[in-house]
Amino acid sequence: MKLETTYKSNNYPIVVEHQALDQLHNYIEGYQDIVLVVDATVDINWKSTLEFITTEYGAHKLVIPSGETTKSFSFYEEMMETLLSKQLTRDTCLIAVGGGATGDFTGFLAATLLRGVDFIQVPTTILAHDSSVGGKVGINSKHGKNLIGAFYRPKAVIYDLNFLDTLPYSEVLSGYAEVYKHALLSSAEAVRNIETQFPNATALASLNEIEYYIFKGIETKLNIIIKDEKETNVRKFLNLGHTFGHAVEYTFKIPHGHAVMIGMIYQFIVANQQLNQDFDIAHYIDYLSALNYPLDIINTFEFETLYHLMLKDKKNDQQGVQMVLLDGIGHPVVKHVDKEALLQAYTTLLTYFKK
Amino acid sequence: MKLETTYKSNNYPIVVEHQALDQLHNYIEGYQDIVLVVDATVDINWKSTLEFITTEYGAHKLVIPSGETTKSFSFYEEMMETLLSKQLTRDTCLIAVGGGATGDFTGFLAATLLRGVDFIQVPTTILAHDSSVGGKVGINSKHGKNLIGAFYRPKAVIYDLNFLDTLPYSEVLSGYAEVYKHALLSSAEAVRNIETQFPNATALASLNEIEYYIFKGIETKLNIIIKDEKETNVRKFLNLGHTFGHAVEYTFKIPHGHAVMIGMIYQFIVANQQLNQDFDIAHYIDYLSALNYPLDIINTFEFETLYHLMLKDKKNDQQGVQMVLLDGIGHPVVKHVDKEALLQAYTTLLTYFKK
Repeated sequence: MKLETTYKSNNYPIVVEHQALDQLHNYIEGYQDIVLVVDATVDINWKSTLEFITTEYGAHKLVIPSGETTKSFSFYEEMMETLLSKQLTRDTCLIAVGGGATGDFTGFLAATLLRGVDFIQVPTTILAHDSSVGGKVGINSKHGKNLIGAFYRPKAVIYDLNFLDTLPYSEVLSGYAEVYKHALLSSAEAVRNIETQFPNATALASLNEIEYYIFKGIETKLNIIIKDEKETNVRKFLNLGHTFGHAVEYTFKIPHGHAVMIGMIYQFIVANQQLNQDFDIAHYIDYLSALNYPLDIINTFEFETLYHLMLKDKKNDQQGVQMVLLDGIGHPVVKHVDKEALLQAYTTLLTYFKK
Repeated sequence: MKLETTYKSNNYPIVVEHQALDQLHNYIEGYQDIVLVVDATVDINWKSTLEFITTEYGAHKLVIPSGETTKSFSFYEEMMETLLSKQLTRDTCLIAVGGGATGDFTGFLAATLLRGVDFIQVPTTILAHDSSVGGKVGINSKHGKNLIGAFYRPKAVIYDLNFLDTLPYSEVLSGYAEVYKHALLSSAEAVRNIETQFPNATALASLNEIEYYIFKGIETKLNIIIKDEKETNVRKFLNLGHTFGHAVEYTFKIPHGHAVMIGMIYQFIVANQQLNQDFDIAHYIDYLSALNYPLDIINTFEFETLYHLMLKDKKNDQQGVQMVLLDGIGHPVVKHVDKEALLQAYTTLLTYFKK
């Protein structure tokens, strides 16, 4: 399956299939320099699969730590200076092979190396179906996630589903949060379908037909970001679950999607209170429990810490915290939510988890 | 005098006149947050002039060191984290008040803060007539100048010529190099005019009618960058004198324009040798001496050091050093020049300065 973005210019293809990596050739011919930037775990599991990039194309290779630790200022400086020591020209392409952190980090390197060189996203996780599309790149600040970065489009996204074979279930859960989010942003029917396809942990672990839902997720995302690349309006909808989720992720260092799923429950509670919605909170908690999301962490939450982090969200304006809320499935809106309302929703959330 | 860029979209005005700062109001109304980033020396000399930005607009104020020291990785990190500690939203405008380094640095902060916020250039030097226009922003690597950065357009350039009153003559010389360069890129008549207007140090120090030549310089530059913002072809012409100049600047830490003027002489020599030109090298050296450019430093040059740095120039491709050469005044070309030819030109350059 293949999609193409529909911007006015500088469009890029998104290839989603098993063996998609075979098509990488089409996009990296002719560069003077190629740099393979690969996640350390992926490098171990897929060394021979990726070898052609270094052997056939003489690519430089940088192996970077897995996960968010890679997205630090000091590591950005280290890798940037390493790249610059190789006397690369502007006719260089970086290839990011890994999860979301690898793509974010490599994309930011590409955006700022010699004022910008090309890069290609080769996501290896379900989560990265989301982050590899849309051109958001960046690193983390000590004040919050992704606060330093750019909007910088890749030249191509080559999503080889074979990589998912070695994905631990915890990572499957993390990625599924964004797939599920895209269903929530889409329609009640999409949500019913995906819950039916993946009713429990066994079904989800099988990844049966996951490519369909990943593809749908990318489609949903593309429809939004084509209208608003720089997140001045509708792109904010993609942050469903992320205001609270990012704060949880930053505080507890749990996988992104685990935190976003919790953020999504929180959002349902806020939507019930602020928009007079009638979301069945117990249903969502039961569903996530059936998928084995580790939700017990909610018992250890501290409101003031999370509130302080929510205040730093990039979507905010001077009036305070802005959240994406569902005014019905498939109908996201952006709303200011004041501290009192956030505290009330937090208190409600905790009642579901009190022992 | 006012110019406006003519890109397809996202154009910005360039106001060049005495008291231009009065017009800053038109461009900073309505932002949620404003941050004044000001060069330490400018802050001392023009504190009361700039005060309205903090008092009327409640701007945050960052005072940064003068010159290139500001453009280090560690200072970038420090200022970025300082900005992020202020819980700014994306509806923020940074105002860069200072020379080229202040603009480059602040522009890169703006390009990467929360994935990009607005910024306005308020250049205070002659040199910055050049760097403030065109959207090149960045910081320095240990491997060379401006190797980390982006193309990121300002929202406006407000060039208040009053600032030039406190400019030391050494800075006048540095800026004049780019004004003179723009004349060289323009026409033989433009060069005759500017040499007649400023025949010696006394005339140049008076800055009499400098605004005309600055305005012409900006016009010349705009004509080029509108055609090629990302420097894939004709924008390279603006690097006249910079291949050798950057290497000299980086090695000896002398002001940018002093180094570029030396780079321009070097380029005339290479053009004579490689393009069968007949530039009167002695004339240019005499002229620059009459303006009091400190050229004696040329006696201390070491070819291998400079060559190594020239190899890192961003314009290069895999064939080696690419230089902008004048195939006649007003007729720049980009040419590969091999090491032997570079050495030959270097040796010729030295013969003019041997005691």
